[in-house]
Amino acid sequence: MQLRGDTDFWSTCIQERGYTINNDIPSSPQQDVFDPELFRKTAELVIGKLEKYLADSSIRGLELTNPYVLLESAKDLMTEEQESIAPFDAERLGAIIDLYIKTGIQVYSPGYMGRQFSGVIPLAGIVDLISSIVNQPSSFYEAGQLPNVVERIMADELNKFIGWDPDNFAMVTTSGATLGNLTALLAARNDKFPEIWSGGVSALAGQCRPAIALSEDAHYSLQRAVGIIGVGENQIVRLPVNSQRQICIEKVRPTLEAAEQRGLKVFCLVASAGTTAVGAFDQLEELAKIAKEKNIWLHVDGAHGASLLVSDQLRHKLKGIEKVDSFVWDAHKMMFLPGVCTLLFYRNREKSYGAFHQNASYVFEKTPDIYTQFDSGEQNFECTKRPLIMNLWVLWAIYGKAVFADKIEYLCELTKEAYQILKGEPDFQVLHQPEVNILCFRYLPSNLVESEFPNFQVEIRNRIKECGKFFISKIDINGIPSLRLVFMNHQINSTHIGMLLSEIRKTGQELINQKQQKQTISSEYKRSK
Amino acid sequence: MQLRGDTDFWSTCIQERGYTINNDIPSSPQQDVFDPELFRKTAELVIGKLEKYLADSSIRGLELTNPYVLLESAKDLMTEEQESIAPFDAERLGAIIDLYIKTGIQVYSPGYMGRQFSGVIPLAGIVDLISSIVNQPSSFYEAGQLPNVVERIMADELNKFIGWDPDNFAMVTTSGATLGNLTALLAARNDKFPEIWSGGVSALAGQCRPAIALSEDAHYSLQRAVGIIGVGENQIVRLPVNSQRQICIEKVRPTLEAAEQRGLKVFCLVASAGTTAVGAFDQLEELAKIAKEKNIWLHVDGAHGASLLVSDQLRHKLKGIEKVDSFVWDAHKMMFLPGVCTLLFYRNREKSYGAFHQNASYVFEKTPDIYTQFDSGEQNFECTKRPLIMNLWVLWAIYGKAVFADKIEYLCELTKEAYQILKGEPDFQVLHQPEVNILCFRYLPSNLVESEFPNFQVEIRNRIKECGKFFISKIDINGIPSLRLVFMNHQINSTHIGMLLSEIRKTGQELINQKQQKQTISSEYKRSK
Repeated sequence: MQLRGDTDFWSTCIQERGYTINNDIPSSPQQDVFDPELFRKTAELVIGKLEKYLADSSIRGLELTNPYVLLESAKDLMTEEQESIAPFDAERLGAIIDLYIKTGIQVYSPGYMGRQFSGVIPLAGIVDLISSIVNQPSSFYEAGQLPNVVERIMADELNKFIGWDPDNFAMVTTSGATLGNLTALLAARNDKFPEIWSGGVSALAGQCRPAIALSEDAHYSLQRAVGIIGVGENQIVRLPVNSQRQICIEKVRPTLEAAEQRGLKVFCLVASAGTTAVGAFDQLEELAKIAKEKNIWLHVDGAHGASLLVSDQLRHKLKGIEKVDSFVWDAHKMMFLPGVCTLLFYRNREKSYGAFHQNASYVFEKTPDIYTQFDSGEQNFECTKRPLIMNLWVLWAIYGKAVFADKIEYLCELTKEAYQILKGEPDFQVLHQPEVNILCFRYLPSNLVESEFPNFQVEIRNRIKECGKFFISKIDINGIPSLRLVFMNHQINSTHIGMLLSEIRKTGQELINQKQQKQTISSEYKRSK
Repeated sequence: MQLRGDTDFWSTCIQERGYTINNDIPSSPQQDVFDPELFRKTAELVIGKLEKYLADSSIRGLELTNPYVLLESAKDLMTEEQESIAPFDAERLGAIIDLYIKTGIQVYSPGYMGRQFSGVIPLAGIVDLISSIVNQPSSFYEAGQLPNVVERIMADELNKFIGWDPDNFAMVTTSGATLGNLTALLAARNDKFPEIWSGGVSALAGQCRPAIALSEDAHYSLQRAVGIIGVGENQIVRLPVNSQRQICIEKVRPTLEAAEQRGLKVFCLVASAGTTAVGAFDQLEELAKIAKEKNIWLHVDGAHGASLLVSDQLRHKLKGIEKVDSFVWDAHKMMFLPGVCTLLFYRNREKSYGAFHQNASYVFEKTPDIYTQFDSGEQNFECTKRPLIMNLWVLWAIYGKAVFADKIEYLCELTKEAYQILKGEPDFQVLHQPEVNILCFRYLPSNLVESEFPNFQVEIRNRIKECGKFFISKIDINGIPSLRLVFMNHQINSTHIGMLLSEIRKTGQELINQKQQKQTISSEYKRSK
């Protein structure tokens, strides 16, 4: 086992730990790669780097790099092509990790206010390491006994906040809400049109055109799913939103009825619990009433907002969730886990077996036994599924639900505070009352001529991103570009919000000045002609 | 920061490292959870456990547990429900990890010979830990700069073994071959029938019935995909296989033509490079010729076998791969990475943008710039995508390709050896000449009356699994149950194969004896009446 290196911090660590020379060289290069001691020593060095990274509380967003420059830096870090396995080179690894850390969005910094993923609860990262090493794909009980059992436990724990009959609902873990939403839409399609799985969508031709109703603000993955499952985007019925960007309940029935008159058969309606755009929560009770009346499957995309269920203070946002047919919940968003861990819930367990059909003797058993009863392979899309649930369950088992609820409550309070601050600033326009930890607004100083500067908000956002101190996002609302905050970090407080506003003002004024200067130069140039 | 514990190995570690008391208690429970020092100390303890696990070379398969018993054990390890965050309890965590390790398939042991995942190259687990902490979802360059750049590098590295025009092919990473296969089938569907995305499959009604040709031995995910994308399972055209279980080339044209006559329009043909069942490699050159002639998209499921491309000795198995339209490659199988890391290749880059259509201002840019050119969000299914490529690239950068090629070559040689051993044993029937690291066979001792014991192979497999020394799998071949070996561990040698055969003989004879005893008792009982 060879570890090279002598100059920087990393090398000092290597030397301090006495790694430089090891006389006990294993017999084959393959054994070297799998050497348990090399594993431990390397892991300890890496953990030292990560500790330093976690301890850095400076305000920073993202160091945006030219990808072609980064490409060359990465190539330079690779060992040369050779016939046999290159000896382990700790210095090379150290440089790779430094580059990896440096070029990411700094998710643990208070400067990060822009997206729906977070600096994860560090213990979840450690559990992920265990999962990588013990490698227990968890669609089948025999390959991942604990993950499969733990899925049942977490299902029951989370159902405490839903209230379904414990013997009759189902929770399935899957890899991302895009996949969760697709799975639910398939379950809905196959439930309402059982002939499609075998016959194809064209089996319905002449009878009816299946259609899906989506909120105007539904996540793009839902629109995609309609294209994927063969229903076709033209068969999307868009439900208008109100001023809070919730599905406008009054318009649902007329919209559905108009669709029926156009020959569409709406079999599924998708609502949101926390839209991606502004974090709006649809009124589930009202929607459930309509869905029941019209025999429509009601699915809820709760990727962002379903986590509010664990908070006694905030659960009311999902009032009526027990009446929906299915919903997804991303634990890698507001439960602060590494990507990805998605939970897909069905009110009726049997329907969870309707999304897919299959037959494969190498994994599925003809005669179920006590073991295969715990398999999830027939309910989830994946064959090899990472034991996603372990990150969530271990945190739940060690810290209890408060580790999630407390942080969620803090972030929602912080967003309300940001809303109040922005309302008090005449040069800012805040676009909605926040329901969760997302807030959209615009910087509209009195010296801005909007018609001459249509892309002002986006330019501010990009320049701030490039400056590297703050990371925020942008979004079109009613087609108008806006700035967007997503608070995922409990270390952010009102001081940081104040600093961000100063940064936006400074940046915006710089942009206006530059434009004015250009215009002056250009008009002087014209005059001088 | 509180760490409890005093009795076992784990507790001794805790004490030795002086963790028991720490006076520097952070101010809020939330900060405690995020404390960098707690992270490091906990990670070091966990790594100690994993080192011990990796160093255990004893022969063992799986400790199969009654799931209801395991459920109670897991519940017992959970903290009690409480209002505030429970203090960190190292002892509890230690017990959870012990249970997690103990109940998994022992993938690093020579007793594990049963599935297509492996004891991973340990460094990949460490990289996974870094990915969990730095949390860089990699569908978009700005969120994961290095992962997105590295995808390009790995694409070029791997294309050295394919030989496509470097400026015109595409490689996309995605979460599992099931998703990779689905994505490719969508790209094929949308390429051949552009009207489906918007109009739905029923838009074709009256014109033609789209159909997909699959090998008899195609993975179940492909059959599923046909149901998912709205084509319908009835529109699967099954291609017969030859005695080596490859698609029988002579029968392809007649089968396709018979399908045409039934009114089907086959737009995609799926071949395998390493079937799940026996590891058969289809003849890609011949299939590519037919596909071109008939204007059919040729996709290859190389989930298991595409890794052979990195071996100079074995690459010939994929002869013709440069002529196919798309193929998937699971690096979490024969590249020994943690689940999951799937690579999806397209010969024509433009077609890779055809699988999905979308529009979402919060992530997609209307005007591409040098950064967004590196985004993969339009080509891959996922919105939040784990930086899957990092595990592969870091190993490649540190060790070079030999770390994969050497091990793959060893495993394929070992399988040939097992084949020779089995051929020499008159009480075993080996079912095919192995092409890769998968081998199927049956134990057929002379005292077995097959007609009276139809489930003999499966019972052997289950009993061996329950005994816990070896882990092998089973499979139906031509509807007949068989035993199946998958060698994923370079520590297995012919001695272990010999031990397994003894175990199978012992188990088989026990089963026969038990059955005979039962029959004797039953006939004596009848006689005594």
